[in-house]
Amino acid sequence: MLELIEQKKTKKTDAAEELSSMRAQLIDIANAAKSAKLPVIITFDGWAAAGKGSQIAKLIKYMDPRFYNVEPIRKPNEPEKRKPWMHRYWLKLPAGGEFLILDGSWYSDIVKSYMNGDIDKEEYKRRIADINVFERQLHDDGYLIIKLFLHITQGEQRKRLKALYEDKFTRWRVDEQDFINNKRYDKIFRRYDKTISRTNTASAPWNIIPANDRVTAELEIMRAVTSSITGACDAKAKGKPYKMPAQFPITDIEPLKFDLVRTVKLAKTDMNKELTDEEYRTALDKYQSRLFELQNLCYQRKIPVIVAYEGWDAGGKGGNIKRVASALDPRGYEVKPIAAPEPSELARHYLWRFWKRLENDGHFTIFDRTWYGRVMVEPIEKITPQARADMAYREINEFEY
Amino acid sequence: MLELIEQKKTKKTDAAEELSSMRAQLIDIANAAKSAKLPVIITFDGWAAAGKGSQIAKLIKYMDPRFYNVEPIRKPNEPEKRKPWMHRYWLKLPAGGEFLILDGSWYSDIVKSYMNGDIDKEEYKRRIADINVFERQLHDDGYLIIKLFLHITQGEQRKRLKALYEDKFTRWRVDEQDFINNKRYDKIFRRYDKTISRTNTASAPWNIIPANDRVTAELEIMRAVTSSITGACDAKAKGKPYKMPAQFPITDIEPLKFDLVRTVKLAKTDMNKELTDEEYRTALDKYQSRLFELQNLCYQRKIPVIVAYEGWDAGGKGGNIKRVASALDPRGYEVKPIAAPEPSELARHYLWRFWKRLENDGHFTIFDRTWYGRVMVEPIEKITPQARADMAYREINEFEY
Repeated sequence: MLELIEQKKTKKTDAAEELSSMRAQLIDIANAAKSAKLPVIITFDGWAAAGKGSQIAKLIKYMDPRFYNVEPIRKPNEPEKRKPWMHRYWLKLPAGGEFLILDGSWYSDIVKSYMNGDIDKEEYKRRIADINVFERQLHDDGYLIIKLFLHITQGEQRKRLKALYEDKFTRWRVDEQDFINNKRYDKIFRRYDKTISRTNTASAPWNIIPANDRVTAELEIMRAVTSSITGACDAKAKGKPYKMPAQFPITDIEPLKFDLVRTVKLAKTDMNKELTDEEYRTALDKYQSRLFELQNLCYQRKIPVIVAYEGWDAGGKGGNIKRVASALDPRGYEVKPIAAPEPSELARHYLWRFWKRLENDGHFTIFDRTWYGRVMVEPIEKITPQARADMAYREINEFEY
Repeated sequence: MLELIEQKKTKKTDAAEELSSMRAQLIDIANAAKSAKLPVIITFDGWAAAGKGSQIAKLIKYMDPRFYNVEPIRKPNEPEKRKPWMHRYWLKLPAGGEFLILDGSWYSDIVKSYMNGDIDKEEYKRRIADINVFERQLHDDGYLIIKLFLHITQGEQRKRLKALYEDKFTRWRVDEQDFINNKRYDKIFRRYDKTISRTNTASAPWNIIPANDRVTAELEIMRAVTSSITGACDAKAKGKPYKMPAQFPITDIEPLKFDLVRTVKLAKTDMNKELTDEEYRTALDKYQSRLFELQNLCYQRKIPVIVAYEGWDAGGKGGNIKRVASALDPRGYEVKPIAAPEPSELARHYLWRFWKRLENDGHFTIFDRTWYGRVMVEPIEKITPQARADMAYREINEFEY
């Protein structure tokens, strides 16, 4: 798609009126989003020296800093590498009424990782699928995701890098790698282009911003931001999902397929199974030792393990967890009792509170009650409407995938 | 004090009865702590190969894993190094009714850092003072801190290290450094001894456990744990602070002194100051540019900056924050609006929710309402009793120190 983008030049004076009207509008819009408790994510991706930083500064200048958070996305650090790769993005999710503005995002993350050889093609593809699931889950939950790609040409990039390098105050911002990347612009172009095409979904379509000219870029960014927040607030007021107009044809995503394994129906469970005390002791000892060995193996191989408990009240979960836990090295597991959600949890996607409780690779996380509450207790007690709970089956399968 | 510890030998058969009675008791005690919402921290420090891991395993065997969390304390990782050194301990604080069990603690942390030359003597002393403040603040807030030091002799340590090394299944647990440290046992002994003497406070006195003999160690640990939890629950039921019996004479801590600067009384503030629009514009531009430069400097020098806002409702905090924030690079600050505390926050020391919001060094954290709520709005609205609020003055000065 990138090849379809036309770089334009806009005179400052021509843009002045529209810009100042949109800036004024932005204040009202941000307030409307706040009252409507609309959570908004704006991602700024694009070429090095495309002007992401200064465009972000222009955008937030008229917004209330108590309700937005600007986060630069760098390479994952060591603790982040010990979690699923999207963990750090889940943790940053804004609450309803808040703005999360990302300087770089999961897109820069995977393109850079792939270009540096940190991940191979298979992993890159898996991550594209993860992103599409992530954005769809958020959109289905009422999040507005505005994805901006600041596009500049190879010549423009070279010019800007040189200018930055020649000024002693900005020299620190560029390094040799930037110039190398400018030389292999075509290769990176193809990777960005593929990434954009494969993630231009109905849940979160792309806004490609021609950014050779800064005024044009500001204008297009302001248009995209103001129109989509207005649209999302209007849709929310009508109780409808918001469909952002797409700049390019939408990519159809084939939903993940889950092979459901046949299980015994609850009503048909054999409730008469019994063990003698001696059989029980022997089996318990045997399996506890085996579990301890397996925990060691998981630790060595850095496999994160989740044990999820659901069941009737007084069904014996507590004692069972105790017997599992007592077989394990206590430094390598944590039991997470899931109580009623806190206000900060209710203000975000319901999976957020489980994502944030995930432990490092090699560790065991034992959940005492789980995300299945969404489809079990919540619709029964009318905490969640049946329709929303029905959507959660897919989300749960995706989460566990 | 360590030289006063007598290593004892206890026959397994002699200890059996007392141990099994204490184990049974521990189940009830842990339940009592849960009902009383008593937060408990148990720290295991001591020599390498003193048996911390296996003693922890013995202790928790009879406890409900949903209410304890065992955390090994390692060297701080990169993100942890970008926060105040005690930040990671604050984050781990248990809620009322929960147990935090640490394998290594802030004590191992500073002794190892000092012995490795990562911190100098001055920093070591500052950290001792930090620890004493930390433990006193927690104790004053109703936390029970049980500090255990597992003490073994040089000969016993050498024997154990050799045994671990000679068994191919446990060889990975020892390295050359352990043997070097065994050779300089005396030097480390003196450092541990000093550390223990300087932190044997009334808020959290030490329990030194003779650990050459494993049965003796288990017995002494169980005695310390069961008696102090029982004592703390009883005291809490009577609404009194708990004073743990001390094994050794208590160290008197000289409280930190704060030089209070004379400020203008609110009633005497000159409310008639005025600026013309032009003066305002000029001054605003000048100071915003200056602030931007200073932010850069703080970033380069890794100085973390906190800006704290308090004031009357409708006093103009929002607009003021906006003008400060708009001068800053948005990637280098975050505004934290402080709303009513969540249940997880109410269940911990009130400073916890501010500690957890602290940003990395080099960053600006702007608090819209602060820890001063504790001494301003909370006693006025009777959320916090006046007596507890009065204690908070000292805690606030210590927090800001």
